[in-house]
Amino acid sequence: MRITRFVSPDNEIMYGEDEGEERALLLEGDPWRGFKTTGRRVVIGERLAPVEPVNIFCIGLNYRAHAEETGASLPENPVIFMKPTTTLNHPQQEIVLPACCKHGPEVDFEAELAVVIGRRARNVSEEDALDYVFGYTCANDVSARRWQKHGGGGQWVKGKSFDSFCPLGPVLVTAEEISDPQTLKVESILNGKVMQQGHTSDMIFPVARLIHLLSQDTTLLPGTLILTGTPAGVGFARKPPVYLADGDRIEIRISGIGALVNPVVQG
Amino acid sequence: MRITRFVSPDNEIMYGEDEGEERALLLEGDPWRGFKTTGRRVVIGERLAPVEPVNIFCIGLNYRAHAEETGASLPENPVIFMKPTTTLNHPQQEIVLPACCKHGPEVDFEAELAVVIGRRARNVSEEDALDYVFGYTCANDVSARRWQKHGGGGQWVKGKSFDSFCPLGPVLVTAEEISDPQTLKVESILNGKVMQQGHTSDMIFPVARLIHLLSQDTTLLPGTLILTGTPAGVGFARKPPVYLADGDRIEIRISGIGALVNPVVQG
Repeated sequence: MRITRFVSPDNEIMYGEDEGEERALLLEGDPWRGFKTTGRRVVIGERLAPVEPVNIFCIGLNYRAHAEETGASLPENPVIFMKPTTTLNHPQQEIVLPACCKHGPEVDFEAELAVVIGRRARNVSEEDALDYVFGYTCANDVSARRWQKHGGGGQWVKGKSFDSFCPLGPVLVTAEEISDPQTLKVESILNGKVMQQGHTSDMIFPVARLIHLLSQDTTLLPGTLILTGTPAGVGFARKPPVYLADGDRIEIRISGIGALVNPVVQG
Repeated sequence: MRITRFVSPDNEIMYGEDEGEERALLLEGDPWRGFKTTGRRVVIGERLAPVEPVNIFCIGLNYRAHAEETGASLPENPVIFMKPTTTLNHPQQEIVLPACCKHGPEVDFEAELAVVIGRRARNVSEEDALDYVFGYTCANDVSARRWQKHGGGGQWVKGKSFDSFCPLGPVLVTAEEISDPQTLKVESILNGKVMQQGHTSDMIFPVARLIHLLSQDTTLLPGTLILTGTPAGVGFARKPPVYLADGDRIEIRISGIGALVNPVVQG
């Protein structure tokens, strides 16, 4: 099922089964207690991020080619950091370049496959891990590079935490439609030009291993979001570097899921 | 006011004004919508962490003497990392040494003053910052040092994220009772022996500056928790190092707040 969360023209927040062309079949319930189909066709007013995450874990340097472009050696364990839930952003909503990034351009895009946990997971084996996935969506792990690298004593959280820095969407594709998450094309397109073009088969830690490792003695609640890392081609590693600027349009596209589009504005 | 959250003998979760000796005056409401006193005296069954945080920000190396003992140079900006909300732990509840910390002892304690944000804060000045504080409590930023330093490519989140790794309590002291948070003694005591003995006047970034800096283009929701860093004397920096072990009893004590005590067990 392709689930959309949206604001109706009457200003109600609803879930629906996406039918394309800004229409959906209304769903009652929520992802954690379960959905009931209604057959009622409704108009999508404004699309929302398809989930409101409880915690956002992010994986750094999880694509071989991206690890190489940053000059980092391949990690033995996943590089794990977090974004606060206040970074959540929606399809078509503005990514705001923070006023405190005032020493010149530094805000970068990162196309990522996002995994939504559907059942409480703790110490799950790699074999069983995908059974705990509710679904998949596109994410942009927006990153202020100066803050990430030089503004937090080497810890990345500050540069990843500004409001609007976690666009998600456009829909949540439930797990039974993506039986193997290592078969997806992941791209970012800036103002119509392809910047990243990767494939989830290039992940150093595939999704099942990430869930297994993240759940070691650590509870992943339903609604936990895992951003699984970004492929090569991000702005700071390009020659010359490319950063987001006022008026830009950045799109994250994943095969089988769709396109997450956000305009960029100066804050 | 000294607020306690607890489970009543009838198994209800309640807030109360702490009266000591496991009794409280029942409060109706919650910290974000406001409390109404009832005058009804109730028995505290089991104390809970006084808040359920929405996001947990942590500050590294924020005491001069602790930054020195780790060998780090004094940071220009606060070192910011996060713990997932699933780390939340309660007074008297067990800190569980993770089974995946199997290469020998590595789990350490960190006594910290914890700040609870009470009003939505974004781009607040240092002068106004303390107006956004709901209250203060004691925290233990429990840390698996091998995971923190060597298991996450330099990112600390993994070593800080295991279940039970964020004990909070015993009470939340509202902001009007602590007009200056830079006047508090912060200690940890392991099996009766004082390990850390610091003072919040030694903070490199005082609480008001931390809130100002954390709120730069970043929304701090009511219920945001800020662990403000730990003074010198943590286990890994001692000679010889001291790590938590099965059967230990670790206590975090802050003047004007109280003592947060947790037993330690092997998971």
